Amino acid sequence: MPTSQDQLKKMAGERAVEFIHNNMVVGLGTGSTVKFMVDALGKKVKDEGLTIVGVPTSERTRLQANRLGITTKGVDEVDHIDLTVDGADQIDKRFQGIKGGGGAHLWEKIVAINSDKNMWIVDESKMTDQLGSFPLPLEVIPYGSKQLFKRLSNKGLNPKFRMKDGQHVLTDSKNYIIDLYLHQIDDPEKLASELDHMTGIVEHGLFLNIVNTVIVGYESGPKILHAR
Amino acid sequence: MPTSQDQLKKMAGERAVEFIHNNMVVGLGTGSTVKFMVDALGKKVKDEGLTIVGVPTSERTRLQANRLGITTKGVDEVDHIDLTVDGADQIDKRFQGIKGGGGAHLWEKIVAINSDKNMWIVDESKMTDQLGSFPLPLEVIPYGSKQLFKRLSNKGLNPKFRMKDGQHVLTDSKNYIIDLYLHQIDDPEKLASELDHMTGIVEHGLFLNIVNTVIVGYESGPKILHAR
Repeated sequence: MPTSQDQLKKMAGERAVEFIHNNMVVGLGTGSTVKFMVDALGKKVKDEGLTIVGVPTSERTRLQANRLGITTKGVDEVDHIDLTVDGADQIDKRFQGIKGGGGAHLWEKIVAINSDKNMWIVDESKMTDQLGSFPLPLEVIPYGSKQLFKRLSNKGLNPKFRMKDGQHVLTDSKNYIIDLYLHQIDDPEKLASELDHMTGIVEHGLFLNIVNTVIVGYESGPKILHAR
Repeated sequence: MPTSQDQLKKMAGERAVEFIHNNMVVGLGTGSTVKFMVDALGKKVKDEGLTIVGVPTSERTRLQANRLGITTKGVDEVDHIDLTVDGADQIDKRFQGIKGGGGAHLWEKIVAINSDKNMWIVDESKMTDQLGSFPLPLEVIPYGSKQLFKRLSNKGLNPKFRMKDGQHVLTDSKNYIIDLYLHQIDDPEKLASELDHMTGIVEHGLFLNIVNTVIVGYESGPKILHAR
């Protein structure tokens, strides 16, 4: 029987926990792979009696961590973050990534840029030659978002509001999400810069030159890749 | 007796209303000078029985406009905006501006970039050779704002949270404001670009290459300047 995607995610998540040691301040990402990691971390903290502070990147990760007995603090309550472990929706050969499939990329990026080191944990399906087959999420200010949508559409960026049950999906910061269906991104740096300059976009899901280590769950076992 | 600053603001505001005609969709800025303009516009709409749609850039301007019988719509409810009339905190010789002293620069910029033409109305004290003696406002995401503050401070940008009665001032989008006390801005384009790229900053108060016409209230009377 082939290994399921969930087993590959769990494999990567559990391997990541070996990098977390006593007295560390650890950024906790968001998503299904991170969920396995936080489960494993909760067990490790309990079994080994570790003192760990977790800095969650979403309300749902905070709730999970607290349920497992992991102490959490807000990003503004810690002096520094030693290591952040997060998932990714797509990672290319240069270790540039797309995040935000779970709608948490603003808080994730804020935690990432305030971390000494960043680690991403993924199953093998997330590794790609070129970014873009996964839609690129934008967190946008609700005020003026229809005008922004038109502007993105006119640029050929193929936007779509992320909806659930006929309502806008709201981020933890109470903003909307627009996904760009780009199919392929030829120049991530150029696109990131263009989006950075657009008024009304709070943050895009391109995470460039951020990750240091990637753990990939393959059928043959977890592989640790050093990105930068 | 010299003309008071309020009289100069009123002079500019009343002159601006002459540019507003029947059936126009008009962006309505925020601030003390705009308040005089909206008063004059309310009177004109009533006296001349005009059909005007106002697109307010803040809750307080919306309330004032509605009180005066001016129909208002949200920026996402109109197809286009013909002209936006707004104030400015500082305007340099190249007609680049700083806005956001009133904390509304995010919504103001969203309305401005969606307008066919932009007009700023100011008293003469706002005209300057070089921007920067007025502090530059940033609208920032509350999550991570202390870490962002440290980052701005390390860059020598002299940040200060805008507070009132010991609480963070909240924008209409429920974000915080950080003012940068820069004294002088040598290269507004470079600074704008640097701030655009920083995660956690929703929008800065540099309004570059946006305004078409400036009306300045001088003791000798209102002066109309064509910017671009």
